[in-house]
Parts: sequence; structure tokens; C-alpha cells
Amino acid sequence: MPRYKLTIEYDGTPFVGWQRQAVGLSVQQALEEAIEKFSGEAIRTQTAGRTDAGVHALGQVAHCDLQKDWEPFTVQQALNFHLKPLPIAVLACEKAGEDFEARFSAIARHYQYRILNRRARPALDANRVWFVNQPLDAQAMDRAAQTILGRHDFTTFRAAQCQAKSPVRTLDRLDVRRDGDMVVLEVSAQSFLHHQVRSLTGSLKLVGQGKWPEAELRAALDAKDRTRCGAMAPASGLYLVKVDY
Amino acid sequence: MPRYKLTIEYDGTPFVGWQRQAVGLSVQQALEEAIEKFSGEAIRTQTAGRTDAGVHALGQVAHCDLQKDWEPFTVQQALNFHLKPLPIAVLACEKAGEDFEARFSAIARHYQYRILNRRARPALDANRVWFVNQPLDAQAMDRAAQTILGRHDFTTFRAAQCQAKSPVRTLDRLDVRRDGDMVVLEVSAQSFLHHQVRSLTGSLKLVGQGKWPEAELRAALDAKDRTRCGAMAPASGLYLVKVDY
Repeated sequence: MPRYKLTIEYDGTPFVGWQRQAVGLSVQQALEEAIEKFSGEAIRTQTAGRTDAGVHALGQVAHCDLQKDWEPFTVQQALNFHLKPLPIAVLACEKAGEDFEARFSAIARHYQYRILNRRARPALDANRVWFVNQPLDAQAMDRAAQTILGRHDFTTFRAAQCQAKSPVRTLDRLDVRRDGDMVVLEVSAQSFLHHQVRSLTGSLKLVGQGKWPEAELRAALDAKDRTRCGAMAPASGLYLVKVDY
Repeated sequence: MPRYKLTIEYDGTPFVGWQRQAVGLSVQQALEEAIEKFSGEAIRTQTAGRTDAGVHALGQVAHCDLQKDWEPFTVQQALNFHLKPLPIAVLACEKAGEDFEARFSAIARHYQYRILNRRARPALDANRVWFVNQPLDAQAMDRAAQTILGRHDFTTFRAAQCQAKSPVRTLDRLDVRRDGDMVVLEVSAQSFLHHQVRSLTGSLKLVGQGKWPEAELRAALDAKDRTRCGAMAPASGLYLVKVDY
């Protein structure tokens, strides 16, 4: 049975997240129904990142096994046809070896978080950013961010419902830069805890506002205490950009 | 009566265009109703660019006169409050002199046209780009574009319903560049004919596909014949970026 690696873009706004839920349409369900429509096979896909409701993807990766040996380009075109009019697009489809696992073979996941930082609420970027109307000091945010890179117990920045066995993760990149009215965070690690990026972003926003001194981010990390985390940033600003294998 | 200059962002998708129409909601109507809600004054605004249905703005400019001498920031905040939940945001509000006219004082208008050029249809950029799935040669488009800069009779690239007295315009900038999957056109002039940017874009797309030799763009211009124009590009990829005074 050939295995296919799919690279997927989606607007997370209308979905309950990647993963199938009892109520509401998930990206996973939409994708698996499109697969069934063109191949007749009711299968399950596996994914690199189970994004939450409202979180977007520029380069999510999933894999699936199909009975028939389709040309990858045929799979891509057929899925994009059957996914219409939902805001999900299969950007690439390629054959992968039997040992390829979208989730477990990933060596790095890259997220971006976008904060629109101006007085006026977003018009073109509605549902695509976190709108913060108080001025943020992106340089202070970036300096604080650099103090928590590396391997740590990230209990402070972990959702209560996180199912990972260990709270230890290695944060490889957490850069904050201003691009006009947009404050952009670039975040990379092999894997993340549930809500880790949004928890870090919510805390860094307090640094940017001057409500936290820069050193508070590292102190909150070292405390290993969820109550020390800033209010979590909303899903709308988060993008899964790329997964490396 | 103080005159206010408003800088406005909008997602053109749900609107019938800038200008009031007999049927459907225009940006102008939404803005004027918001002005009336906060000031009680039923007035008419004047604008730098009467964008068509589906065309977006990052920096449209309009002006209006109000009886009461409001603080500009109060006007901005009140309009953004009353414009909710429409995708229109007032980015800036400032007092302008009596001789300021959003339309007639403009010395340059800057548009951007975005073509998403890849195999997969847009997910995050639905309604924000022109989706072209055949490969485009952006460098060939750019070379052709440079041959029609300057002052010309643009009859070929003018809508049949254009109401301008003269078809002569001076095109100051028409740059085409590729940025990943996006082909971006930057277009500047003091003023444009109706559908001029979309007509030029539609013709340049034919150059990018190799259906027109590069020299055909200039030949079509020189012919002063609307039937020589390529099929017009859709509204969804066009943005009014900025107006200079």
C-alpha cells in the first residue's frame, strides 16, 4: 500500500481544529471525507500537528495509506476538487516510504504568531491575527524570549489538559520582530506542549506592554507553575508554518 | 466646519464597491451611516479612489466636514466602534485644511495587484488574490511593463463605461516581482482610468504565460483599441495601498 505525504494550507477559522470532534467540522474530517470521495476508501490520516480550533496552517503535514497506486499529482488535484469550497488546500502530495510518519518522523516544527499592534481593529486581517491596541516593545519581547531558549521543564507554559508524558521540551527558536504594525513571533522546536506557543505569546505580550519586567519570563519558566503564565494568546494569530523531516 | 481626513482599510469582498449603489452595501454607505450614528449628521464623504466591488484597500483616503469640532482621535474611535462588525477600519483621522479634497488634492495613487501562482487554489488567501495555476514568468511581465511607462493614451486598457474626459494618463510605476508563490504588481500614477490596473494586469498575465510576446503589451497600447486588451483580471487581487497628497 503506497503511503502519501500531504502538505496542507488552511484557514482555521471555521473549523473545530485539526482533530475530529464529537460536534463540529474538523480539518481532519474534511480531508478524510475528500479522500473517500475520490478513492472510495474510508481511512484515517495522521498529522504532524494537531492544531486547535481557529489556528491556521501554511504547511501542515499529514500522511495516509491508499490501496491503489495513484499518481501523487492526481491525489492532490482530486483532494483540492473535493475540498471545495472549504478553505483547505493541498499544496503538495508525494509518495513517502513505509517508515515515514507525519507525526513521529518530524525533526522540527515551525510556528509563527502574528500580533496586529495598532489603534484600529483589523479589517483585512480579521480572524488572522491577535489584535492588541496598546503599544508593544518588540525588542524587549525579543530580549526576554532569548532567555528561555534550550531544554527546560515548560510546565508554566503548558495547558492543564496537555497529555504529553513529560513537560520537558527543547525550544530552538523564539524570535520577536516588528514589521510595521505587525509584531511577529517565530517559534521552532522538535515538538511542543499543548498551548505552549500561545502561552509563551501571552506572557511575552505582558513584557511588550511593560507589565512584566523582561526577567519575569525566565522567572515564570523556572517556577514551573501554570499560575505564573500570562493570559493565553488567542488561536487566531497562530500559524503552523512548516514541518521538517 | 472642520474637515477630517480619514485613512481607511477594508476587505472589499462583501461590498458592492466604494460608491453607493441602488442595491447592496457600499463602503461609502457603511462609513456615512457610522458617521451619522456618532455625530447625528447625515453627510456625504468624498474619496480618493472609487474602488469596484471586491477590491480591497490598505490605505483608502476620504474626507468629510462635521458641524462639531471633534478631536480626531474621538472620530476615529467612534467610527471604528460603529463600523463593527463590518471589515472596515479607520486607520487614521486628522484635521485637514478647507482646501483639502481627498479626490482632487491627490498627487499619487498606489495600487498593488496580487496573483497567487501555484497549482493549489488559495485557502488562507481566498478572495484576496487572483488564482492563476499556470506558471507565470514574472521577469518577462516586468520587462513588458517597463515599455509602457509614461504619458500615453490608455484607451486599450480602459473600461467601456469609464467616465473620464480624457484617456491620457501618466503611468509612473508598473513593477512586477515574484515573492514565492505570489506574483506582485506595484502600480502608481496620479490618477487611473476605470479598470486600468485590472486591464493591464490581465494583459500582463498573457505575457507571463507566454501567450503574448513581450512586445505585444506596447503594441496593444499603441493600437488604442479596447479589443486588443487581455481579459480583465478579477477584483479580488487588487488593493488600493496608499494615496499621496
